[in-house]
Order: sequence, then C-alpha cells, then structure tokens
Amino acid sequence: MSANRAAGPTTALALRAVPRWDAEADVVIVGLGAAGACAAIEAARAGARVRVLERAGGGGGTTAVSDGMMYFGGGTALQRACGFEDSVEEMFRYLSAACGPEPDEARIRVYCEQSAAHYDWLVELGVPFKAEFYPGRMLSPGEEGLTYSGNELVHPFRDQAVPAPRAHMPQKEGQAGALLMQKLCAEVERAGVEIATNVLCERLIVDEDGRVVGVAATEAGVTRHDRAHRGVVLCAGGFVNNREMIRQYAPALRKARFRASTEGDDGRGIRMGMGAGGAAIRMSMGSVTLPFYPPKQLMRGIFVNRYGQRFMPEDVYQGRAGEIALLQQEGRVWLVLDDESFERPVFAGGEVHAAETIEELERELGFAPGSLAATVALYNAGAERGEDPLFHKAFEHVVPLRTPPFGAIDLSWDKAIYAAFTLGGLATDTLARVLNADGAPVPGLWAAGRTAASISSPGYSSGTSIGEAQIFGRIAGRSAANA
Amino acid sequence: MSANRAAGPTTALALRAVPRWDAEADVVIVGLGAAGACAAIEAARAGARVRVLERAGGGGGTTAVSDGMMYFGGGTALQRACGFEDSVEEMFRYLSAACGPEPDEARIRVYCEQSAAHYDWLVELGVPFKAEFYPGRMLSPGEEGLTYSGNELVHPFRDQAVPAPRAHMPQKEGQAGALLMQKLCAEVERAGVEIATNVLCERLIVDEDGRVVGVAATEAGVTRHDRAHRGVVLCAGGFVNNREMIRQYAPALRKARFRASTEGDDGRGIRMGMGAGGAAIRMSMGSVTLPFYPPKQLMRGIFVNRYGQRFMPEDVYQGRAGEIALLQQEGRVWLVLDDESFERPVFAGGEVHAAETIEELERELGFAPGSLAATVALYNAGAERGEDPLFHKAFEHVVPLRTPPFGAIDLSWDKAIYAAFTLGGLATDTLARVLNADGAPVPGLWAAGRTAASISSPGYSSGTSIGEAQIFGRIAGRSAANA
Repeated sequence: MSANRAAGPTTALALRAVPRWDAEADVVIVGLGAAGACAAIEAARAGARVRVLERAGGGGGTTAVSDGMMYFGGGTALQRACGFEDSVEEMFRYLSAACGPEPDEARIRVYCEQSAAHYDWLVELGVPFKAEFYPGRMLSPGEEGLTYSGNELVHPFRDQAVPAPRAHMPQKEGQAGALLMQKLCAEVERAGVEIATNVLCERLIVDEDGRVVGVAATEAGVTRHDRAHRGVVLCAGGFVNNREMIRQYAPALRKARFRASTEGDDGRGIRMGMGAGGAAIRMSMGSVTLPFYPPKQLMRGIFVNRYGQRFMPEDVYQGRAGEIALLQQEGRVWLVLDDESFERPVFAGGEVHAAETIEELERELGFAPGSLAATVALYNAGAERGEDPLFHKAFEHVVPLRTPPFGAIDLSWDKAIYAAFTLGGLATDTLARVLNADGAPVPGLWAAGRTAASISSPGYSSGTSIGEAQIFGRIAGRSAANA
Repeated sequence: MSANRAAGPTTALALRAVPRWDAEADVVIVGLGAAGACAAIEAARAGARVRVLERAGGGGGTTAVSDGMMYFGGGTALQRACGFEDSVEEMFRYLSAACGPEPDEARIRVYCEQSAAHYDWLVELGVPFKAEFYPGRMLSPGEEGLTYSGNELVHPFRDQAVPAPRAHMPQKEGQAGALLMQKLCAEVERAGVEIATNVLCERLIVDEDGRVVGVAATEAGVTRHDRAHRGVVLCAGGFVNNREMIRQYAPALRKARFRASTEGDDGRGIRMGMGAGGAAIRMSMGSVTLPFYPPKQLMRGIFVNRYGQRFMPEDVYQGRAGEIALLQQEGRVWLVLDDESFERPVFAGGEVHAAETIEELERELGFAPGSLAATVALYNAGAERGEDPLFHKAFEHVVPLRTPPFGAIDLSWDKAIYAAFTLGGLATDTLARVLNADGAPVPGLWAAGRTAASISSPGYSSGTSIGEAQIFGRIAGRSAANA
C-alpha cells in the first residue's frame, strides 16, 4: 500500500499517503460506458453528488462501438408489441441453463426480474425501439427492434425453457451502440453529474479500516486524488486487451484475434478492485463469437473437428459456436458443405478446400482415412429421414450432403474471425457490491459491466453484457448513493 | 484491513491493530507439508530463525496421504542407475508441451534445472529409492523407484520430446508419502526449526507499506500474533475442499467426487495471500485422475463420449484421461470393449452394460442410431492394419473389437472415481515470491506447494505437485531467509 514505490493499479493507495483532495463527491464512478452512465444516473437521482472519471475524451466505452444489442425479457413492452409471450420464470430458466456450470442464480434472478422495467426506463430516456421482429439468426441488418441472440431455439435449450426472442435493439440502421450511449450520456448530464474526461484512474484509495474512500488518477500527466464520501463504482470494462492478464488468467482466449473492445478494456478496473481486496473470479471465461453465418444456408453444413467428427448442432448461436470451437476444439474446425449448400461466409473469413468426393476432401484436409466419410454417411443417413439424431439441429437445416463437388471451409482460429471479450471479473452480489474471496463486501466498493464477473461463465447470449452493465450499473449507483 | 469486524482470511490485519507479538522469528512458514518442510529446512540452513505454524496435530499435509511420487528428471542418479538417459532440455520440452496453453516457461525451466540436484538432496536426507524401473503404466505396486507418470510415451508428446520415466518413488510397499514426510520433518527438527502444531493461521499482518510482517493465528481458541522479520512463506495447500471457492473459481471441478487432499486444502493460504495483494491465477484448473486402468488390457478398449465418438488415445495417462473426460466431455464417457478385452477396472468403479452386437449396445446406451457402430467400424478398420490413424494409440493396445458379447463400462462422473485437486493459486515468480496482478512482488510474501499456481495448468503429470512443492519450497525458504 506504499505511495513511495512505483505501483500498478493492483496496489491500493493508503489514505494517509494522500497529500490533498483535488475533488470531492459522494459517489465516484470509474468509467463512462453503459455501466458507468447507468450508475451515475441512478446515484444522482438518489440525491448523491456524483463524479465520473473517464479515460477517453468522452463517454461511450465499449458499448458505443457495439451493435447496442441488449438481452431483456420477462415480457417487455417490445416483446408484447411484437406478439411474443415471455415470463421472468422462463427467462430465468433459459439463462440458468445457458450460463455455464454453477450459474449465479441470485444475480440471474435479479437480472430477469428487473429486465422489463429497465426496458421501459430506456424508452423514457428516449432510446427508440421499432416494434418489429427480425426472424434472422444474426445481427439485424435493419431497424427491427427484436430478435433472437442466444440458443433459445437450439437443442437442448429449446426443451429447457419456453423460447422467446430477447435481443432488444435501438432503432437505427447498422450499429446502434453509439445511439444508445448518446441517450444515456445526455441523461447523465441532465442529472447534474460532474464528468471528467481524459482522466486515467490509477489506484483506489483505502482508509485504515480497508474502506474505499477515493481514487488516485492521472490528468494531463499530473496525479490527482478524488474523494468519494460514500463509495466508488468501478465500471471500467474487461481485460481482453491486456495481453499479460490474458496469459495469466485466460490462456485459451489468446487465439481469438479479434476483440470486441476498446483500448480501455485493459483490466485496470479489475486490478484496482483486487488491490482493495476484491476477488476476481471465473477469470478464464470469455465470450467468443465465430460468425460462420450469414448466409443462413451455411447452417446446412456440418462442423467437424480435426478428427472429422461433428461436435455441435450447426444452428447454434454464433456466440456459442465460438466458445465451443475455440475452447473445446482448440480452434481447429471445418465447415463441410456440398455444392447445394456452399457459399462463402459473409463475415467469418476462412480458407476453402474443394474436392469431387468426400474421400478426396478427407485426404485434402489431412484427416484420418474414413473419418470424415463415416461422419458424412452417418449425418446423411439421419438427414434422409429429416433427422439429426446426434445433435438435434433444427429440421429446416437438415439436408443430406450429396451433390459434388464438396467443400470444406477451414474456420480454424488462424484462418477465421473469432471475436472475444472477457467474462471474468470482480465478484459482486445482487447489490453490485464487490466481494472479497471470503464472500464479504469490500466496504465502499461497487462494480458493474465487464469489470464485474458476468452471469455468463461461459454460455454467452448476446446482449447480456450491455444488459448486465445497465441493470447492475443502476443497482450499484443506487446502492452507493444510499451507503 | 480492520481488526474490528469479524474477518475471513482474505482480509489482512493491519500492523497497528496487533496488540502484542506472541512470538518472533525471521521467517514464519504457514503449513508443514512438503513445501513447508523444504522451505523450513533451507531457511534454517541459511541462518534464519524459522517458525512453522501447522493447523494439524503434526507435520505431513497432503503429501503424507499421497503415494509420494515425485516428478524429477534431467538425468537424476536414479534415472541413470535404471539405465535411462534424460536431459534438462528434454524434460523442459515435455513439460512445456504438456503443461497447458501459455506454460510458465521460466518456472518450468528452474524446475527442470534443479530437479536432479534435488533428488540427490533427498537421498542425503535419507529418503530411500530402489534403483529399479517399473514398466507398468499405473502406480507402482511394489518398491520400484522409477516409472512413467505422464504422457511421455503417448501421442502427440512422444514426438515432441525424447521420453524418459521421471516418476521417482521412495522405496516402500504401497503409499510412500508418509515415509517421505517423516524424513523431511525429521530434518526440519534437526535444523532447529520451531514447530507449532494445532495452530490455525487466520490472516496475514501487513504494515503501512503493504509489507507482510507476520501472521495472526488461533491456538486453543485464542488469537495470537507471530512476527516475521524477513517474511512469511505460505505453504498451506490448495482449495479443493472449499465448496464455495470451487463454485466461484473452478465450477467444472465440482463433479469430481473424490479429492486428493486433506481438510487443510480449504483455500485458506490462497485467500490469505490475496488479502495481502497477491493475485490468484488459473483458478479454474485442476488435476483430475480417472484411474480406468489397471488392468492394462482396458487400454485396448475405446473411450467414447455421449455422441458415440472417440475423443482420446486410450493409452493416455490416467491424469490426462480425467481432465479430458471431465473438463472437455462433461464427465459423460464410456469405455467400450469386446469379450477378449473386457475386465472390470480395479479402482475406477463404473457401471457395466453388455450386448450381443454393437447396434444393441448402442441402443442400450441410448446413443444415436449408427453412431457407435460407425465409430467401432472405423476403429476396427484401422486396427486390422495395426493402426490408430485417429488418435495414434500405441500399437500394442490396438486390437479390433469383434468378439461378442460387447461391453461398455459407464465411467461417467456420477458412476466412477474421478479424483481431483486444484492447480490454481497465487502467482509466484522463479524466486517463489508472491506477485500481485501487476506482476510486482508482494513485499515479505512467498508461496509454494498448491498454495501457488502450478506449472501445470492443466496437463498434469503425477509427481509435479510434490516436486514443485519441494523445489519451490526450498527456493522460497532461501529467498525469505536472505530477504
């Protein structure tokens, strides 16, 4: 806790080493992305004086460079307007099944319960949504407001919870994240929050009892110390852009060459929290997207690993496809197609191999003799009956592969686009309080967004990141303001 | 850092809150297993006053309830006496390939370089080894000193480094861990180390600069404070027996119902280190052993997952078999055999299914029609030629499965013995200093044994745990004594 030696963010600064306070507030928020904006709005509305420190030149964070998709449900106004029924219970069932082993059910429940009301809150802030359902299984190309962004319709999840589309997208052609952040940041300003940009937070300041009482930061090359009378909320993103942290905590993610992130996702917020005693959990987990479709007809292919074996239903959501391909198959996968089903993926890249027979393709790919042929024969035998008994791909994508030439798109990690971000982070409770490894709250410290460990670990459904950021960001803001 | 509220091990105690020192030493060591004993011996030999605090009634730790196998190489006297050549470089090559993605090459190199000399050190302490090689691929049933305990002979590792047997076992029928610890503990006493048993360490004590200066502990219900002038070495085991930590950090390990551990493996040492700023890394990793052989002839079977697909060479080391089966196949696996190869596993348990044909067995197991049949046909086609083109199982185990009745032993996680322990822990450097998440040493703090993150993460070869404990324990003792 020394102020004397050069210290990284993990080393908290002792209160007694603070020379003076350069600013004071009730609640200091680190980072102005979706989580920080929501925390700021709620803390200010609860009557707290709020100060936000943002390292970039303006608010936005990673949400601003995203598609703006948000995973909400339980019967939102948009779901109803599009003619879909949903309930908190079914949403909870789906997420509990999808979100990895030992899901954090307490936080998932809060997320589901507050989801519909939070959607209304966004509408009140002026975020526009068009009440139109997009039936595609990929990012919306237009202004439609609602789509599927997970594995709700995919085996085995479709049997575990009543499916409903839950991806809510602001009305805007193309990427809608910037629009979303524009509305949130405007509300932050309206709420009277003090925003300091180009301020890089360095370390948390803790008092003799271990309570977080402020933030040490750098502004224009000068160290400053901002006091937080009630607490600090860390909303500073994940760590996918910190190569050394990836090596130490999430080595399997190193092969994902594309990162859904900004440079701010360097793990600084997580490390600051660790320095104050917070536990960083599930740090090996990541969301990995392999956008092997569109076009949708590529779902008619079969994905095989280096043993020529199938390993997942090919109608799986892109987010899950990437997790499985990278984390369970070491990122060595091929999509096998016939002449009828072949097209090039729009986004994923990959390297195309073609041959007149499956046996020739097998040789071309260097697979063991008979391995791919056995897989295709087994798949075709089921497909002739309109079935996929092995992986239960949905009926409409199950078509025998028998029209030469045959093709294989090498979608291995070094050939295709795998886009990753981290899901591990600080342990938090349902009040977004940061917990230490004993499960006790670190006094004066909250976290939300990718600085906190996700409810998905893994088993990502798109939109839960911005969804969690907002819902737990708001909770953190209220909780800190009332501390 | 408050002494006022009830605090768990993760909350360090501030020096100013220490009422008095109940004992003083240069180096305080937490835990008297293999790591603690080695640290104590070296610290005392370096001239330090050393005090060891052990929670149990006597020394031993998890090593004392183990088989006592130690992974050493690079040309130990025992390897040479048994007629095997080995070098530091080949050992380094094997471990770097085997120890998971992004292996910690700096620590692996130190481990390999010091391995042969450490073996001599043990012999000097009176640990007996019989210069006889045991060719079996399982725990030695007798007194032989040397065997294989990893995947040195298994594809793909056999092509990546020149294989050599590296498992060194003290000469004793059955479990040799207790004998090993008896010799180490005797030397601890001879070295003049002060040993306090039945003392449960609670928290580290840190001064205003964040330096670790002592340990708060409980003895007979009373809190005591032991000062460490030069530093504290945490050698308090792993966390496989802490259910909540497993849930938070290593959820995939929860299905391993057997734990290679003592009750001391409750994560306390790791949490104490975190409380002083140490980073806990690779916490999701574990060693998982599925002892599906002996008898050795079971390697002639084929392991299949719930899709009826093979997923590993069946001559794989038991430690790797468990990791792959539990962590990559969700613990749902069956060993398929014919009448010639069938026997019951000696240790693993499991549930036997039998049928006259493979198709019948497939139905009996609830597999998709044709799935297992295709796998067996492909395997047999290769086996007829004496080959396993898919997984490269060693020639002598490759025999077609064609003699009815056919059997499948259900070795799923809820039917069979999976024995686990944790490999994640505090980040340490080549001097066994505990590092924070910025990579900087926590002043006054060292760790060794399973309290430190293993060189294996995962990719365990049996004997590296006790090997690491000893080699890095000794380094920690010397480094702390000279601090």
